[in-house]
Amino acid sequence: MGLISNMHLYDSTIPSGNAYKVRLLLSHLKIPYTTTNLNILSVPPETRSVEFLAMNPNGRIPTLVLNDGTVLAESNAILFYLAEGTDYLPDDKLQKAQALQWLFFEQYSHEPYVAVWKFRTYWAPGGFDDLCESEVKKLRERGQEAIDVMETHLGSGREWFVGDHYSIADIALYAYTSAAEMIGFKIDGSVKAWLKRVEQQEEWIKIKNDPTGKCLS
Amino acid sequence: MGLISNMHLYDSTIPSGNAYKVRLLLSHLKIPYTTTNLNILSVPPETRSVEFLAMNPNGRIPTLVLNDGTVLAESNAILFYLAEGTDYLPDDKLQKAQALQWLFFEQYSHEPYVAVWKFRTYWAPGGFDDLCESEVKKLRERGQEAIDVMETHLGSGREWFVGDHYSIADIALYAYTSAAEMIGFKIDGSVKAWLKRVEQQEEWIKIKNDPTGKCLS
Repeated sequence: MGLISNMHLYDSTIPSGNAYKVRLLLSHLKIPYTTTNLNILSVPPETRSVEFLAMNPNGRIPTLVLNDGTVLAESNAILFYLAEGTDYLPDDKLQKAQALQWLFFEQYSHEPYVAVWKFRTYWAPGGFDDLCESEVKKLRERGQEAIDVMETHLGSGREWFVGDHYSIADIALYAYTSAAEMIGFKIDGSVKAWLKRVEQQEEWIKIKNDPTGKCLS
Repeated sequence: MGLISNMHLYDSTIPSGNAYKVRLLLSHLKIPYTTTNLNILSVPPETRSVEFLAMNPNGRIPTLVLNDGTVLAESNAILFYLAEGTDYLPDDKLQKAQALQWLFFEQYSHEPYVAVWKFRTYWAPGGFDDLCESEVKKLRERGQEAIDVMETHLGSGREWFVGDHYSIADIALYAYTSAAEMIGFKIDGSVKAWLKRVEQQEEWIKIKNDPTGKCLS
């Protein structure tokens, strides 16, 4: 039997919700993998080294190296790849597109505000200092708008974002929404109950045992 | 035979690259559809009316109503839905994920900068006036970075973004890149040649015959 190499995940030294999505799904699927944590706060960040850019020209984590060496970037594309053919992505053509609708919503209308707010609260050198007032206002308002859209969707009696099952749509939205209340966003009842449902899933894991104790969910 | 209703696309009165992606693919696929153009510049925008929000709680165009009345939002999720099973999306599991990788790249690293620059150049009341200096700088720099990532990818001898065929990855990236030079971004040789290749595809259409003459590609 030849040597079978595991998948390898490029993550960051500080907790990243985008990498967490991938680790959470890998945990559910019980897929073994190895990890390299890159320092994204160094100047230049380790994600902008010549070696890393040769793998992922967009210079971002998470980046997943598959068993055959193929490199896949973009957290939500990785989720789709890993979930296709499993219980974590519907087979049905329309439901698959609806899952993608929420994945694109997450990356366009949610992450750029909620994740950026979290990053600047806990890890960005200088915090919010280099942002002007209108930028800070936009982060807060649009992040809340996205969370409110989630509340509207779940508030109509849905347990999960797509169909009747937990899927990568829930995983993608959970990653940063789970930290949103801690950083001052308002989370209402339907989203709160849904967060709890996600945390009851088999093989659910925390984002990271963060030594600062700032971010334990 | 019962009445078969066409798909219905909610677009905007001003040219939208995100809606154009959907119209371009519908043209390639020769799928008939009807359109409603909403005014996104009114206060409040027509995309935030009670009626529209009941269909798409995120209040954005494009929004596609399928033949059976199901509503699908997010331009790139719509592209995936329409392309699955056609020549415009690879069947291969890995290539499908690579197409999604570029679709997420487009919505996260490209559109928020290039599309926003275009919108503020041509249509936003007040143009760039309500942005602070650092916001304008970020739009320009990150937009150029995204275009440079595309140049790097195509520059290694590729004709198309995924595999050997024109796909929804090309369609999504084409929508705003085709206008990028006109609004001051630097477009190099590989991206330029690729833009031309897209324009030679069967049933390719222009974004809109814009009466202002500002945007003809």
